[in-house]
Amino acid sequence: MSNVDASDSAAQGLTRLNRWKACGGFFEQYTHPSSSTNTAMRFSVYFPPQSTHKPVPVLYYLSGLTCTDENVVQKGFVQSQAAKRGLAVVCPDTSPRGAGVDGEDESWDFGTGAGFYVDATASKWSRHYNMFTYVTQELPAILHRHFPTALLPDARSICGHSMGGHGALVCAMKTFLLQGRPPYKSVSAFAPIAHPTACPWGQKAFGGYLEGDQGAGNAGEGWDATLLMEREGPFPFPLLVDQGTADTFLEGQLMPEALEKACASKGQDATIRRQDGYDHSYFFISTFMADHIDFHANALGLPRE
Amino acid sequence: MSNVDASDSAAQGLTRLNRWKACGGFFEQYTHPSSSTNTAMRFSVYFPPQSTHKPVPVLYYLSGLTCTDENVVQKGFVQSQAAKRGLAVVCPDTSPRGAGVDGEDESWDFGTGAGFYVDATASKWSRHYNMFTYVTQELPAILHRHFPTALLPDARSICGHSMGGHGALVCAMKTFLLQGRPPYKSVSAFAPIAHPTACPWGQKAFGGYLEGDQGAGNAGEGWDATLLMEREGPFPFPLLVDQGTADTFLEGQLMPEALEKACASKGQDATIRRQDGYDHSYFFISTFMADHIDFHANALGLPRE
Repeated sequence: MSNVDASDSAAQGLTRLNRWKACGGFFEQYTHPSSSTNTAMRFSVYFPPQSTHKPVPVLYYLSGLTCTDENVVQKGFVQSQAAKRGLAVVCPDTSPRGAGVDGEDESWDFGTGAGFYVDATASKWSRHYNMFTYVTQELPAILHRHFPTALLPDARSICGHSMGGHGALVCAMKTFLLQGRPPYKSVSAFAPIAHPTACPWGQKAFGGYLEGDQGAGNAGEGWDATLLMEREGPFPFPLLVDQGTADTFLEGQLMPEALEKACASKGQDATIRRQDGYDHSYFFISTFMADHIDFHANALGLPRE
Repeated sequence: MSNVDASDSAAQGLTRLNRWKACGGFFEQYTHPSSSTNTAMRFSVYFPPQSTHKPVPVLYYLSGLTCTDENVVQKGFVQSQAAKRGLAVVCPDTSPRGAGVDGEDESWDFGTGAGFYVDATASKWSRHYNMFTYVTQELPAILHRHFPTALLPDARSICGHSMGGHGALVCAMKTFLLQGRPPYKSVSAFAPIAHPTACPWGQKAFGGYLEGDQGAGNAGEGWDATLLMEREGPFPFPLLVDQGTADTFLEGQLMPEALEKACASKGQDATIRRQDGYDHSYFFISTFMADHIDFHANALGLPRE
């Protein structure tokens, strides 16, 4: 279904931009040409110490609006528990950058920094804004090709925050529906945009990126986790969602109760937790990061501490 | 010996700027007028969950060159282990800001963001650049007055990074020498400027802030941890120092070997560790932060996990 071909860029080179030792492993940051976005793309990856001896499973972490690959690297504190469990963490950027699409830098919640993990179909955006294919196909292929001794090709989970929580849910659901097998062993989200066709952020994004979609139109329904769950659930992977009760975006944008209701109605294996007093920030994310790492590490069959 | 009077500002008000829940406790950020610096000063504090029920000991964390109170809050990840042990962490700024001293904003390693935790004696700087008195007298008095049910007044340890590692060592040594009792139960440092009279950063700072000191002159010797240890050691508190071997400042600026030699010659209770492959960044600091929190929590008599 993808409107881009992800196969050829895996052969192209990665350029390492940075490398930092942390908790016995290494954060590394790369840039590469992308055939999904027709731009350079940047990502970061945490290699736990175990990955120097044998390939390890991979957790994809998708960031929220305005973020780059660097926010979770600096503030998410994935490294402590990922090093204990032997899990790599891959952190893509949130959109192409410098694509040159007219208007892409005008809003903080659309365009640059706000790719919403869809493949755009509106002609203005469809050459570059294809983050779904980038995250689910191109980037895994690149990682598999470049790090065959460090990363397992088929042991993969996904999580994300806010827009990236939406992304994690939808990437997992849609790839399962497309491929007929669960490419991600587990899915988690921090404060996800759980029902984007019903909230302003999602309506703006889908109305712009998706042809024929004016806000809550049909095209967006295939990119809405709550609607996918209602129509296609249950899915054969467990979900974990954490949502802070002091999150200022909770009522108007995030709507976890819609996802919760859909999961309940379909018998989905899902744990949706309210965390008292937490907001939308990385202080919330880093507080529960170890829980999420453990959730994924367990689903991926990694040994307990 | 202080050239400023810290007593009166404790009565003045704090203004809270921010509050975030993290690991069950709260980071809070405040600004207040300071009688040490004759400017507004900003600090952050982590209140662990235990501090809502009873007063807890306090660890002061002093940051390095160019930092504010926010760097360690965002990237140091003190909150995880501090919450487990029941330790508050207080993070002062690294200098006065907006003092209006001619030239204070010209360098990244002198003036604004680079107070070096001394009390300036050079007339140009002495009205404002008094971070030693601020950190060791004024700020503790303010905290005791404003948070009497959350923070213990006399259970205190100190740590810091780079310039702040120098600051932690010197604050502890000098207050002991001035007061004749150890106000800090334990001292630790990440990559401290261990022998500032012998390195460019220290020579520049002391040459500017201290009257009669032109680089390695006499006035700076009373603010040099290695020389204080040689002349006045051993001190009645344990030291812990971590130093990354891939730190680009190690040879020219930090000189942990000088401090190590002085500690050995005086029989100081000191653990000075080399950490293979780590650099000068917060990836290094956050990797070993839990060790430092535990070191201080143990010295302060907090219950083990």
